[in-house]
Amino acid sequence: MSNRERILETALELMNEAGAQAVGTSRIAQALGVSPGNLYYHFKNREDIVRALFADLDAEFRAILVDDVTPPIPAARFADFYLRSFDLVWTYRFFFGALHHLLRRDDVLAAQYRALQDWALAALEAIVTQLVADGSMTSPKRKGGLRSLALNTWLIWMNWVRYVQISGRETVTKADMVEGVGQIFDLLAPYLEPGFEQSARRVLTRALKPRL
Amino acid sequence: MSNRERILETALELMNEAGAQAVGTSRIAQALGVSPGNLYYHFKNREDIVRALFADLDAEFRAILVDDVTPPIPAARFADFYLRSFDLVWTYRFFFGALHHLLRRDDVLAAQYRALQDWALAALEAIVTQLVADGSMTSPKRKGGLRSLALNTWLIWMNWVRYVQISGRETVTKADMVEGVGQIFDLLAPYLEPGFEQSARRVLTRALKPRL
Repeated sequence: MSNRERILETALELMNEAGAQAVGTSRIAQALGVSPGNLYYHFKNREDIVRALFADLDAEFRAILVDDVTPPIPAARFADFYLRSFDLVWTYRFFFGALHHLLRRDDVLAAQYRALQDWALAALEAIVTQLVADGSMTSPKRKGGLRSLALNTWLIWMNWVRYVQISGRETVTKADMVEGVGQIFDLLAPYLEPGFEQSARRVLTRALKPRL
Repeated sequence: MSNRERILETALELMNEAGAQAVGTSRIAQALGVSPGNLYYHFKNREDIVRALFADLDAEFRAILVDDVTPPIPAARFADFYLRSFDLVWTYRFFFGALHHLLRRDDVLAAQYRALQDWALAALEAIVTQLVADGSMTSPKRKGGLRSLALNTWLIWMNWVRYVQISGRETVTKADMVEGVGQIFDLLAPYLEPGFEQSARRVLTRALKPRL
């Protein structure tokens, strides 16, 4: 692992524990046992580190929505969208917990986030459109109903960590993430064909049980 | 109107325009044309003002979910939940935009917010349970499905303003609120009896059209 990667890994760990705002470059350098100068060689400041972590999150999220998605989308791959996207939220929970704060302080990051959001809404709509074409799902009657489903999915997904934090649970746990998967799955459930829904739920239950 | 009420009204107006963080007591006093001492007679600091505004929000929100709710709940009253709750978000948009920030700085406010959230989740679940009992809605098959619907409704509702802000629309408009009503209505739509859904949509369309 390169020094750059070690810095990012440690920063991610510390920020997930203590929150993005509580972790500065000196604390990261100290935890790594390197001099601040060594850290500054790779990153100008904490903002720079957060941007690098977001770039990883961005790339990983895009992969989740497109990797090996060949129609018809099987129930197991469909379940995978949920499992992998909540693993991602868990991995970068500091980011989702402090989202508003981080974006308000950094216009470049805010623009990158908005670009990801626009891309995600289109990708999520494409997925549900494909599920309808596959016969795995019925379409909402209302015009724009698939777009609305995509947007509600995105809204619950990106706000879940914050909801858990606001609810007073001090640290977000994996069990909280499992609950989030259930919430977001319920958005699409009423439209899924019963056989497809059952298969997807079976995959989710099997994957999530050991974590509870 | 008492001085106290005038202070709250002006604070609400300024915070909705510029964001809660940008508005201090001196700016409020200046806008009102009163001395800071006059303001401090009523409120110790900005935190105190935000708490008073939240107390109003809290009371108004509770009224929306219980006023004149006698079973069976008519479609027009059901539509009213959406119209009035989004009017409320609009009226106190500064609060929903800065929610995380405000709660992190004030433990008393955070506890009050959590109490409202707990109450709201139970009240929303009671409403959908009543709709099922009325025959206006079918129940999700999954155990805990009505609770999940209540939680998703709450999550979209409380995060809508923030989503609009993050999406880069500089000021939240009434049209953004209308879109939010549509998003949240779509959560329950697949479970509503067709006749009930149509009647509710008719009320919503009639009420929201002139705003667009």
